[in-house]
Amino acid sequence: MNITEETLIQRIRRRVPSSEGGVLRLGIGDDAALVRTPPGADWVVTSDPFIEDVHFLADTHAPDVVGYKALARATSDLAAMGAQPQLFLLNLTIPASRTGRWLEGMLTGMGRAARKFRLRLAGGDTSQGPKSSPTISLHVTVLGSVERGRELRRTGAQPGDAVFVSGPLGAAQLGLELILHGRHRETRWKKLLAPQFHPVPAILLGQWLAHQRIASAAMDLSDGLSSDLPRLCKASAVGARIYAEKLPCVVVPRELRPLKLDALTLALHGGEDYGLLFTVPARSAPRIPNTFHGTTLTHIGEIVRGRGVSLVDARGKISPLKPRGWDHFRTR
Amino acid sequence: MNITEETLIQRIRRRVPSSEGGVLRLGIGDDAALVRTPPGADWVVTSDPFIEDVHFLADTHAPDVVGYKALARATSDLAAMGAQPQLFLLNLTIPASRTGRWLEGMLTGMGRAARKFRLRLAGGDTSQGPKSSPTISLHVTVLGSVERGRELRRTGAQPGDAVFVSGPLGAAQLGLELILHGRHRETRWKKLLAPQFHPVPAILLGQWLAHQRIASAAMDLSDGLSSDLPRLCKASAVGARIYAEKLPCVVVPRELRPLKLDALTLALHGGEDYGLLFTVPARSAPRIPNTFHGTTLTHIGEIVRGRGVSLVDARGKISPLKPRGWDHFRTR
Repeated sequence: MNITEETLIQRIRRRVPSSEGGVLRLGIGDDAALVRTPPGADWVVTSDPFIEDVHFLADTHAPDVVGYKALARATSDLAAMGAQPQLFLLNLTIPASRTGRWLEGMLTGMGRAARKFRLRLAGGDTSQGPKSSPTISLHVTVLGSVERGRELRRTGAQPGDAVFVSGPLGAAQLGLELILHGRHRETRWKKLLAPQFHPVPAILLGQWLAHQRIASAAMDLSDGLSSDLPRLCKASAVGARIYAEKLPCVVVPRELRPLKLDALTLALHGGEDYGLLFTVPARSAPRIPNTFHGTTLTHIGEIVRGRGVSLVDARGKISPLKPRGWDHFRTR
Repeated sequence: MNITEETLIQRIRRRVPSSEGGVLRLGIGDDAALVRTPPGADWVVTSDPFIEDVHFLADTHAPDVVGYKALARATSDLAAMGAQPQLFLLNLTIPASRTGRWLEGMLTGMGRAARKFRLRLAGGDTSQGPKSSPTISLHVTVLGSVERGRELRRTGAQPGDAVFVSGPLGAAQLGLELILHGRHRETRWKKLLAPQFHPVPAILLGQWLAHQRIASAAMDLSDGLSSDLPRLCKASAVGARIYAEKLPCVVVPRELRPLKLDALTLALHGGEDYGLLFTVPARSAPRIPNTFHGTTLTHIGEIVRGRGVSLVDARGKISPLKPRGWDHFRTR
């Protein structure tokens, strides 16, 4: 395989939107991108890795899923701040053996995600990686704009605020379980795999919450409710109480009973849903609709004084909710 | 090794400046960083990988060199645009075995670079990487601000413009040759290793050129003159002629003659110098000083009509200059 970096960049640009204009004054081809700020806006910036055997499995996640999901995952952080996605940078490390069909598939998925989320590629880098390591990695930096002073933060939740989540909980994890149990090639489960393969960041919801100034705190659900809610609580120096009966748990079809998947466990601890977790002052809670652009919004509990998150079960029994979500440096 | 991501972030913040304030309205700890634009400024953004066995050798480059250089390399792209460095994001992939002393050393070097270049860490991500690959990688995204309309681009060089470089050429490559020949542990060559281990991006020079509006085109010298000058020429749709006799070649000490290193070859093809390559209209060339903040600025040739770069040797013989610098997808 002998492909120059220039050829590779041309192939990327054919598949992924990267035209200059608007906020992008100067894109791919110079030392760096030049970005103009929309009037009255601040920038939201974050960078996320998407690494083979950590964030995806090359023999399970099709290349277009890898390209789509790498971008969706990063964009979800913009949604969580209430920002409008604008630009992204891609650092791609890819062994020469993957620069053929795999790369085309990956770029197709990434291009689709970029158009869907209205992101343009502004720069980045490609390299082949060390010979000793044939691992694929994508590092995606995303930039979004937000009305000055209206960004969503994790820090403003107050005792008495209502706690909401968007979308079902545990749906992406159910898809992952199908994969881990080798059931993902059965066409009848195709729909159940969509939340795992093609998660949709809550971009419009984040922007609406920000613009309305209605949410006191927000973040995205990437590692699972039991991991993410404590983070929001810690940032806001409060605790929370949620109700098992209220959780919008993913529905596990009865034909999957042999897998012994518990919907509540999936909902509490499953990662990668990429919905929003947000809090709203009690007096404003009635203004939150039941659905927003087709996504359910569910009131699952409330913020309380003190620390920690507790779960109230169907019989009213209260127990502490322990994080069992994702932490690279703990669980592996 | 059992270290949580939270602990790791605390260790990073102890070593690397990351305080909020100024343009950084919200830093590490939320879903993304929130960045305010200085009045009248645009943003310059780029992302660079720094990968073990590709960009550094873990048994040769001390951990503090790795941390320093990863940041210097990315910052050089900001310098090339005339921008003032402001913020950076770090995606760090590191095997558990390196989270002890190696990580502390790396963070020390990165902290030193951040203070020197006036960069603050605004976010990023840490992960352990796949078990199959114990490779360290750093992906650094840097953001700098530039006066609106004054950024340096690669595209403005005109026939007749003078071509300049900053600093000596080939100095970083000479350091690399000492390493490759196993001579880098000899203390008498310590000074020769500095350009390889601790390159200094031309931040002030870039800002001066931008503010003065004196340069018609500019880029940084990362892959070697024979690779980089053709890129500038191509972007500007011009050619160039440079003179071997004028090149500020690195001085190879006579004690190193057995290594058969040719100073001209190092100057033409050696990478990682991170000086600036820039062009200036002939009438403005006299305004370029011979030294700028201690760095030599050298007039090495001129822009010509047409395409391609030619080299004029000491006897006046003209020959095409072929790129022999760095391209991951060609040379490996």
